[in-house]
Amino acid sequence: MNPKLQWLRNKMNGLDLQGIIISNPVNIRYLTNINAEGVLLLTRKENIYITDARYIEYVHSTLTLFDEIIVYDINDVSKDDYENFFLFCENVGFEEHYVTYAEYKEFIRKYKINNLVETEYIIEKQRMLKDEDELKNIIKACNITDECFKHILQYIKPGMTEKQIAKEINDYFETNAQGLAFETIVASGENTSMPHAIPGNRKIQNKDIITIDMGCTINGYCSDMTRTFFVGEVPEEVKPVYDLVLKNQVQTMQDFKDGVSTRLLTKMVENDFKLHDYCLVHSLGHGLGLEIHELPYISYKSDTQLKENMVVTNEPGIYLPGKFGVRIEDTVQITKFGCISLTNSEKNYIVI
Amino acid sequence: MNPKLQWLRNKMNGLDLQGIIISNPVNIRYLTNINAEGVLLLTRKENIYITDARYIEYVHSTLTLFDEIIVYDINDVSKDDYENFFLFCENVGFEEHYVTYAEYKEFIRKYKINNLVETEYIIEKQRMLKDEDELKNIIKACNITDECFKHILQYIKPGMTEKQIAKEINDYFETNAQGLAFETIVASGENTSMPHAIPGNRKIQNKDIITIDMGCTINGYCSDMTRTFFVGEVPEEVKPVYDLVLKNQVQTMQDFKDGVSTRLLTKMVENDFKLHDYCLVHSLGHGLGLEIHELPYISYKSDTQLKENMVVTNEPGIYLPGKFGVRIEDTVQITKFGCISLTNSEKNYIVI
Repeated sequence: MNPKLQWLRNKMNGLDLQGIIISNPVNIRYLTNINAEGVLLLTRKENIYITDARYIEYVHSTLTLFDEIIVYDINDVSKDDYENFFLFCENVGFEEHYVTYAEYKEFIRKYKINNLVETEYIIEKQRMLKDEDELKNIIKACNITDECFKHILQYIKPGMTEKQIAKEINDYFETNAQGLAFETIVASGENTSMPHAIPGNRKIQNKDIITIDMGCTINGYCSDMTRTFFVGEVPEEVKPVYDLVLKNQVQTMQDFKDGVSTRLLTKMVENDFKLHDYCLVHSLGHGLGLEIHELPYISYKSDTQLKENMVVTNEPGIYLPGKFGVRIEDTVQITKFGCISLTNSEKNYIVI
Repeated sequence: MNPKLQWLRNKMNGLDLQGIIISNPVNIRYLTNINAEGVLLLTRKENIYITDARYIEYVHSTLTLFDEIIVYDINDVSKDDYENFFLFCENVGFEEHYVTYAEYKEFIRKYKINNLVETEYIIEKQRMLKDEDELKNIIKACNITDECFKHILQYIKPGMTEKQIAKEINDYFETNAQGLAFETIVASGENTSMPHAIPGNRKIQNKDIITIDMGCTINGYCSDMTRTFFVGEVPEEVKPVYDLVLKNQVQTMQDFKDGVSTRLLTKMVENDFKLHDYCLVHSLGHGLGLEIHELPYISYKSDTQLKENMVVTNEPGIYLPGKFGVRIEDTVQITKFGCISLTNSEKNYIVI
């Protein structure tokens, strides 16, 4: 059996679950490599994937005997089959954060389950720890992101619109990676004061400040990087803000390591910003992998201990409404004694 | 109060609901015009929209006094506020097909609701019937789709890839409409045998058959049209299949009218296809509006009576695996005594 399914079976034993229903397609992709529409059932003895005619051929070509997954066409699954899948199972787990209330009731009716048990993100929590293959994909996505940034610095000229620059980045990722990890952000001038700015028709001008937040995917795995840079010169009023953001991004990098509390990390940056009369309005970072935002969240709201082989972002930012904003973000891999930055574009003042 | 909220309040009275929680953003947009992240509560006396700091300014600019909606920043809503919203409400509705099981449990805890009641797609069912403004948006999206098709027939030349053609369509919609209603399908040659083909690197050749399925949005409202056409000439083997699909698309158009059963419509096409040894492998059509696929579904699986001012697609198709496929689709508005096709591109043999 593949090691991820084996891990889940061991976990189920510990939780006294005799079966589990996995509906979240990202979790299914994580466990099986299957990227389709369907449901994964781990019953007492078998691993079963139920899909429809559109995907059967693809699913068979993705799986190997080693996976030990039996594939069903949903049209061939009878009422009795559904009732037999979890026969003699006392407790069957389900994903309460993904399954709708209507589906939950349908599960009880269809599978005739005694006790449907909430599984509290067990798979999402395991997904925080990346294995070698996952790391390879993320590293490749990060490398392409660095290359794209180099390209885009050469490409940008005054007179271009934010939209035009975003399109060039998107085309680069479509060609050199397997797609976008999220909608590219290109904000210029006063638009940089909005953390989630949508690229618009504003034209790049001399002396502009520009923030670009971008990422691509390789085999489903994401990268995420932000740089704030300048056209012609660095405005004097921006310098102290840029320096403060950069100082915090570089200093916290020292503390991104196995065993450190995500809340503590956030507090450190928040406190330093407050000392200078600024606020940290969004979280300091987030996990990423098959999703661009996944566990752990690095903010004051939640507390997780960073662990070796987690991959997270480090992205402090300061935003002055109507004026400008600065954000500097890297994707980093946590190690036993520190972290490795997987995106490595220049962070000191960049002037184009 | 805006007429859609007034309609919902009347509906709630009839269902003995003293309150309702609307979570589905499409339903919220339908009822209020708000296109953001948040939750809409209809309590005994008030309409309340709770959102966060990112959207407050936008939401205020979207609403008018006439809407009678009170907007809250989620950070200003206390534990007591949540408990007071539905005080003295016996039954409070929620969207069981959208709300996860975890959110359902959170609703009970947070709002202290006696009886959370499933609302069985009440808003989605109302959304089937389009009002004048909704029809205007859909008609505009359909007109742009027809224009785009004219443009693309001029644009396509042998040697171009499916991807390149899809990109031209997408750019056209980005420029002339407000975006894509769904991922554009451009399939050529044997790829046309897959109803959901993804545009690839196959190059258009002389004597090719091409299927394009495309739609755009105006103020959130979708259009949807498919045409199958030919490069240089219509292959003899395709003609009988094309003729059969077209005959059925044109004939059923006569029967798309108020009072007709969607199952019956589907059966008619299925039977005619079977008479010629072909199958209808997907549904005959679907409603569209703020979503590209919404109620009613026109298939043998469900039965709905078509009603005046529903907007649905009529899209019979025949697919011969490994050979070719033909689909012809229009967006149509149901009227009292018939229907109006809102997409009007040529349906007889098109040869480029």
